[in-house]
Amino acid sequence: MSSNIHLALVHFPVYNKGGEIVVSSVTTLDVHDISRTCRTYGVESFYLITPLETQQRLVRRVVDHWVTGHGAEYNPTRKEALVRTRMGNSLQDVLDDIRERTGQDAKTLITDAKTFPQSIGYERMKAVLGESGQFLLVFGTGWGLEKRIVQDADYVLAPIEGVNGFNHLPVRGAIAIILDRLFGRDPLRNQ
Amino acid sequence: MSSNIHLALVHFPVYNKGGEIVVSSVTTLDVHDISRTCRTYGVESFYLITPLETQQRLVRRVVDHWVTGHGAEYNPTRKEALVRTRMGNSLQDVLDDIRERTGQDAKTLITDAKTFPQSIGYERMKAVLGESGQFLLVFGTGWGLEKRIVQDADYVLAPIEGVNGFNHLPVRGAIAIILDRLFGRDPLRNQ
Repeated sequence: MSSNIHLALVHFPVYNKGGEIVVSSVTTLDVHDISRTCRTYGVESFYLITPLETQQRLVRRVVDHWVTGHGAEYNPTRKEALVRTRMGNSLQDVLDDIRERTGQDAKTLITDAKTFPQSIGYERMKAVLGESGQFLLVFGTGWGLEKRIVQDADYVLAPIEGVNGFNHLPVRGAIAIILDRLFGRDPLRNQ
Repeated sequence: MSSNIHLALVHFPVYNKGGEIVVSSVTTLDVHDISRTCRTYGVESFYLITPLETQQRLVRRVVDHWVTGHGAEYNPTRKEALVRTRMGNSLQDVLDDIRERTGQDAKTLITDAKTFPQSIGYERMKAVLGESGQFLLVFGTGWGLEKRIVQDADYVLAPIEGVNGFNHLPVRGAIAIILDRLFGRDPLRNQ
């Protein structure tokens, strides 16, 4: 299995509750949950982005435990999920890595509550993703991606809209929903 | 806001890796993630089901912190998500609670990899949920719901299918995807 879809979870630069640009902490459960979700939908590589060396080491320990350590034997499906999980120092670093591995520049895709010239619906985005080329879906932690990442994105999807304007999904849930909207299918569609 | 949709996360009876029936542990992150996802899609009540009194107390402490304690002021949207989170001793207990609160017996809805006489596609299920009556979406933890819960369900949805048969989504992600399939919408559908 190999696909042209990559996903990044950004821990810097993101906003905190007060609107300042910060480095958010890596949540080890994100490593597991998002790796499993990415594997479910055939995402080629999942990058955790943080400039903090200690946090990168923590993630590498988790991944190594399940991919080559005791965990690989205990739960082989977890190994299968985590084998495509990588680290990056920055978004540029990840884009460089994708270019090196595939020979192509990836287009970036984010979600934002505001509408931009690059805003696109899910159905049209599905058609674009079916074309050739590499695509990187970029998600922010904390209170969201720094605005320059948003402005520079090639495509902007609408966020998941809640009832009565509630818009506070966990990032793990938002990623699952967006991957399903873009790549999911219903085997019992007509039953 | 009030709806006819309820959701339960079952910690007993479920299977462990060895196929034995066990009580799984409550994960406090599930309390937050699933409450936020339920609130996003307008689910009326989210029940965590466990017979263990110590685990029930743990969940109540988490919920109380955010609903009436310091957390309510620190993050009002978290309060809004958790105010509909409840505890149940058993699935029957939850069904009794729904009947007491609404005057109606809830129909149960589960997902399973196998096909049953009650199996139904997502599109048809959406139409059923639009009818009157109460509905309880039931999800298992660990290695899945005990088989009698599955056999007794009023409706069975197909699980989320992965690429190359990978079928190991975290329950938090599966709930997010299924609620989006049943209740989500794309505001930029034609853009």
